[in-house]
Amino acid sequence: MTIKSLDDLFHETLKDLYFSEKKLVKTLPRMAKKAASTRLKEAIHSHLAETESHVTRLEEVFAMLDKKPVAKKCEAIEGLVKEADEVFAEIDDAETLDAAIISSAQTVEHYEIARYGTLVCWARQLGMDDVEAMLHKTLDDEKAADQKLSGLAEEYVNQKAAA
Amino acid sequence: MTIKSLDDLFHETLKDLYFSEKKLVKTLPRMAKKAASTRLKEAIHSHLAETESHVTRLEEVFAMLDKKPVAKKCEAIEGLVKEADEVFAEIDDAETLDAAIISSAQTVEHYEIARYGTLVCWARQLGMDDVEAMLHKTLDDEKAADQKLSGLAEEYVNQKAAA
Repeated sequence: MTIKSLDDLFHETLKDLYFSEKKLVKTLPRMAKKAASTRLKEAIHSHLAETESHVTRLEEVFAMLDKKPVAKKCEAIEGLVKEADEVFAEIDDAETLDAAIISSAQTVEHYEIARYGTLVCWARQLGMDDVEAMLHKTLDDEKAADQKLSGLAEEYVNQKAAA
Repeated sequence: MTIKSLDDLFHETLKDLYFSEKKLVKTLPRMAKKAASTRLKEAIHSHLAETESHVTRLEEVFAMLDKKPVAKKCEAIEGLVKEADEVFAEIDDAETLDAAIISSAQTVEHYEIARYGTLVCWARQLGMDDVEAMLHKTLDDEKAADQKLSGLAEEYVNQKAAA
């Protein structure tokens, strides 16, 4: 047993998120490539740029804690990406594939919203105000990305209804 | 390739969620047993009762679609539960374990919020108003469960700060 305090748990969760963000930097271009809608492609590319900045931000948080940035395999993100790939491989229709891409991207956003939300809460508890502020920026980005995807899904519904 | 339309994708996602909810009915009692805080135990038990009702509600949705309720292995929920179990096994402190349980439960809630949110949107697109209303009830339950967990985490922070 290696986790003896909330400090330790915070640090372990940071490593888990560092793995996740780096995994997404590799995964998002694949998702953008599969998307048919130009607006969906653009939304994914724009979130890729943000995700790269989240990786850098996590490296800054590790530095603030005087720790080396280490990635620890995150089973959750592995499962989310595996599930997405399996579903995409079963789809034989461009519009349906776009709907599945939006849906899968939202499961990833929600994983990150949950984790960053927790880290922001723990940082406050641990009195690490600067770290809390840094992580809050990423939390806000993830919430905005999820809203943008919801907007795309809704527009698609409205277009179909009007068609 | 077996998914040729949004109808098919809706049905596949329903099977995925049916697996997830059934998995949680087995997982939540284990989490409640590990929790030290009485209020956390109670919150998990209360959400277990809700989760059982979500299983039943999904069975009703399958029936409304004239389909048999079939569970399809959900890699995402498997990954989320595996990650939670791995972290819990590393923790050697009751309060830290409670913090980890709240955090892991919130990743699961957020997975469900993302999936039910998507299904509600697709049901609207597919003109299935009754199904949409059913799934919206569960979506509201999952959001409320997540808020309750956030409240427990915040209270814990405030208690610590006041101590």
